[in-house]
Amino acid sequence: MKVVKFGGSSLASGVQLKKVFQIVKEDPTRKFVVVSAPGKRSKADEKVTDLLIDCATKSLINEDVQPILEKIIARYASIAEELDLGSEIITEIKQNLTELIAGDKTQPEYYLDAFKASGENNNAKLIATYFNREGLKASYVNPLEAGLFVTDEPGNAQVLPEAYTNLYNLREKDGIVIIPGFFGYTKSGKISTFSRGGSDITGAIVANGVKADLYENFTDVDAIYAANPNVVKDPAEIVNLTYKEMRELSYAGFSVFHDEALYPAFRGGIPVQIKNTNNPTAEGTRITPERKQTNQAVVGIASSNGFSSIYIEKYLMNREIGFGRKVLEILELDGLSYEHTPSGIDDLTVILRSDQLTKEKEAKLVSQLKNELGADIVTIQHHIALMMVVGEDMRCNIGTMSKASEALSKNNINIEMINQGSSEVSMMFGVSEADEEKALTALYEAFFTK
Amino acid sequence: MKVVKFGGSSLASGVQLKKVFQIVKEDPTRKFVVVSAPGKRSKADEKVTDLLIDCATKSLINEDVQPILEKIIARYASIAEELDLGSEIITEIKQNLTELIAGDKTQPEYYLDAFKASGENNNAKLIATYFNREGLKASYVNPLEAGLFVTDEPGNAQVLPEAYTNLYNLREKDGIVIIPGFFGYTKSGKISTFSRGGSDITGAIVANGVKADLYENFTDVDAIYAANPNVVKDPAEIVNLTYKEMRELSYAGFSVFHDEALYPAFRGGIPVQIKNTNNPTAEGTRITPERKQTNQAVVGIASSNGFSSIYIEKYLMNREIGFGRKVLEILELDGLSYEHTPSGIDDLTVILRSDQLTKEKEAKLVSQLKNELGADIVTIQHHIALMMVVGEDMRCNIGTMSKASEALSKNNINIEMINQGSSEVSMMFGVSEADEEKALTALYEAFFTK
Repeated sequence: MKVVKFGGSSLASGVQLKKVFQIVKEDPTRKFVVVSAPGKRSKADEKVTDLLIDCATKSLINEDVQPILEKIIARYASIAEELDLGSEIITEIKQNLTELIAGDKTQPEYYLDAFKASGENNNAKLIATYFNREGLKASYVNPLEAGLFVTDEPGNAQVLPEAYTNLYNLREKDGIVIIPGFFGYTKSGKISTFSRGGSDITGAIVANGVKADLYENFTDVDAIYAANPNVVKDPAEIVNLTYKEMRELSYAGFSVFHDEALYPAFRGGIPVQIKNTNNPTAEGTRITPERKQTNQAVVGIASSNGFSSIYIEKYLMNREIGFGRKVLEILELDGLSYEHTPSGIDDLTVILRSDQLTKEKEAKLVSQLKNELGADIVTIQHHIALMMVVGEDMRCNIGTMSKASEALSKNNINIEMINQGSSEVSMMFGVSEADEEKALTALYEAFFTK
Repeated sequence: MKVVKFGGSSLASGVQLKKVFQIVKEDPTRKFVVVSAPGKRSKADEKVTDLLIDCATKSLINEDVQPILEKIIARYASIAEELDLGSEIITEIKQNLTELIAGDKTQPEYYLDAFKASGENNNAKLIATYFNREGLKASYVNPLEAGLFVTDEPGNAQVLPEAYTNLYNLREKDGIVIIPGFFGYTKSGKISTFSRGGSDITGAIVANGVKADLYENFTDVDAIYAANPNVVKDPAEIVNLTYKEMRELSYAGFSVFHDEALYPAFRGGIPVQIKNTNNPTAEGTRITPERKQTNQAVVGIASSNGFSSIYIEKYLMNREIGFGRKVLEILELDGLSYEHTPSGIDDLTVILRSDQLTKEKEAKLVSQLKNELGADIVTIQHHIALMMVVGEDMRCNIGTMSKASEALSKNNINIEMINQGSSEVSMMFGVSEADEEKALTALYEAFFTK
């Protein structure tokens, strides 16, 4: 039994919905279908979710919402027309949006969340209508009906444990079950949406709840690539990677989807298959808790920029019990979260995302580290890119570091810092942002071309 | 003006003292001479300091001290005889030891410290007698007279700031000034000894206090070597290294002297020259605050074993603000000090010295990390050796990491972890203890043989 999730671009038009229908129909084990709101049909297009946010925001400040409301309805109407679905479903959607506009504005975050959720919700109804019209028995199931309960945090809802038990009962339902992604209900019956990657999260929760054999995540690329295709030409497709590898790659810039969305599936031990709605015969990428060992140590290389380093030097630092802890405490109290802390004997480097820093915060930090901790030298460096070389099999392959550092050195790229914990699932190199693309290309060539 | 310090093996016999005299005599700028107690004359010999500790301990529990007392006096007597110094100095030493034995036992740590200090103190008197007899004007100066005040911590005394000002006045003294190493006086007039490397500490304090141009530290090796001569055959001698490099090398097993002993000289910006009493024309090794850039990126390679790693894995760890700080806090409360913390996205490795761990402590730690911090996996690994590749010029030499990791990989040595902060003064590799010597040899050959 499979859970299938379709993203916004897979559901942006009637043409796309026809592909989705074929995909669901051709495999009878595809029982649970989680859907997004209609996405972009072209680069210049707008996502329905963005239109809904705009509409809700305007309504909250009592601006005229009529033009944007018409735009939203036109998107559904255009799909219904392409699929020859008749006007009933559009009347229903129109009715729903009118009710939302007239809703309770005293709690703006819930007002907004109800709007956001309607994108997925109305699309799920439309898709159920279409599937049934095509002769495939399908039921739209509202998350409240499914018992998909979440915490009371609009825009950042967390699933409640009982949701999994409730969802399991959906297995009994006849035919295809169509569930809108992106939101659940609080115990008091309010809609609360998930964070980024919301429909992916719903799919993963449903996959865990119904104890699916596979969670198929349909998007608009054939696979996850071994390196960013915008930098490296025709990078290799990754056939299989583990959750851990996926996490490490996602961290440094792989944006096929938000990796944390997979957490519920990961917890349930359910494999995820990334597939392309526009090319469903392509194998795609499978993400599994574990995978067989291969002789390819590295599965992918990612990079991300916008990092800074705080270098702290103090003579006899390593004899001072609690020094590192105190540094981290100062950062925490200043609201700064950090990524890595490579160290020498008398020095410690803290790597963190630059967007957290301001000139004022930096000055405060330098003064705190010097005055409170007695650091001799504190310097802050910006424009650092982190290169992540990722692969579970690095553990068993002597020579990966040698290959990687040789590739960088041959290309005259200075390694500012290196970090490799004993998990050996990734190696991190800090380089100057100016060297980022050159470094990615050099590393890709070292590990993926012969 | 120079401060010259001689270690125990340089002062173990009359023959050695003659060398010392020649060294001091031939350079009129060698004004301040800091001396240790007589050390070993051969591998099987005993150090006077060890005999004194034994004597004090026996005396404290009212055992017969006569045999050991005679042994101690015999050591000085043998030197005096070799140098034909007459019996007066030996009578004085005997008198001093008898007084020590009759001393106040109510504070055993001070009783012990007074004994320990007498090794250096009596030797200084003997040496002053000898120098004067040879026609070199020399005065024995007691640390109390010199104003070398320290904290009230027997066996771990710290110099008080005013000591430096007091010592500066010694510049006015005529002739050579001979100061016993290893101890100072508390403000209430009690003797308090330094920790390990005590005479080196006195030398560094005096060098700082008198604002010496150079601190010459005479020992029994020609130089500091680029790698451990017990493992690597005929390793290169290091001509010049910086304090920072010295620190990094000392940390991982270089034992020419205890590097922290140099701190007072380091603070005063005074260069240190390591020289060999038995081969004074050898250039030796100079330790300076900074040095000229060379095209040799690596100055030395050290290794040290007896480390363990605690591997902690938790899904979404890097989103959890305060996780690292909490880990370090748990370690701190358990009284564990750590060395490095390389990390991945969802994992953190803590490297620490194994001798701090017991089966019970490990079990407690694993349970704390799992229960209090919700770690998914916690594993502890023992028998790790840390290899330190050290050199300030690595900063400017692209390719050092590549060279080092290639050397390890070619020799089939798996790198368990890597750590290189942005100081780039050292690179740390964690390897299995079984690979330690092989790794040291491989790294030495990569950087020092052509």
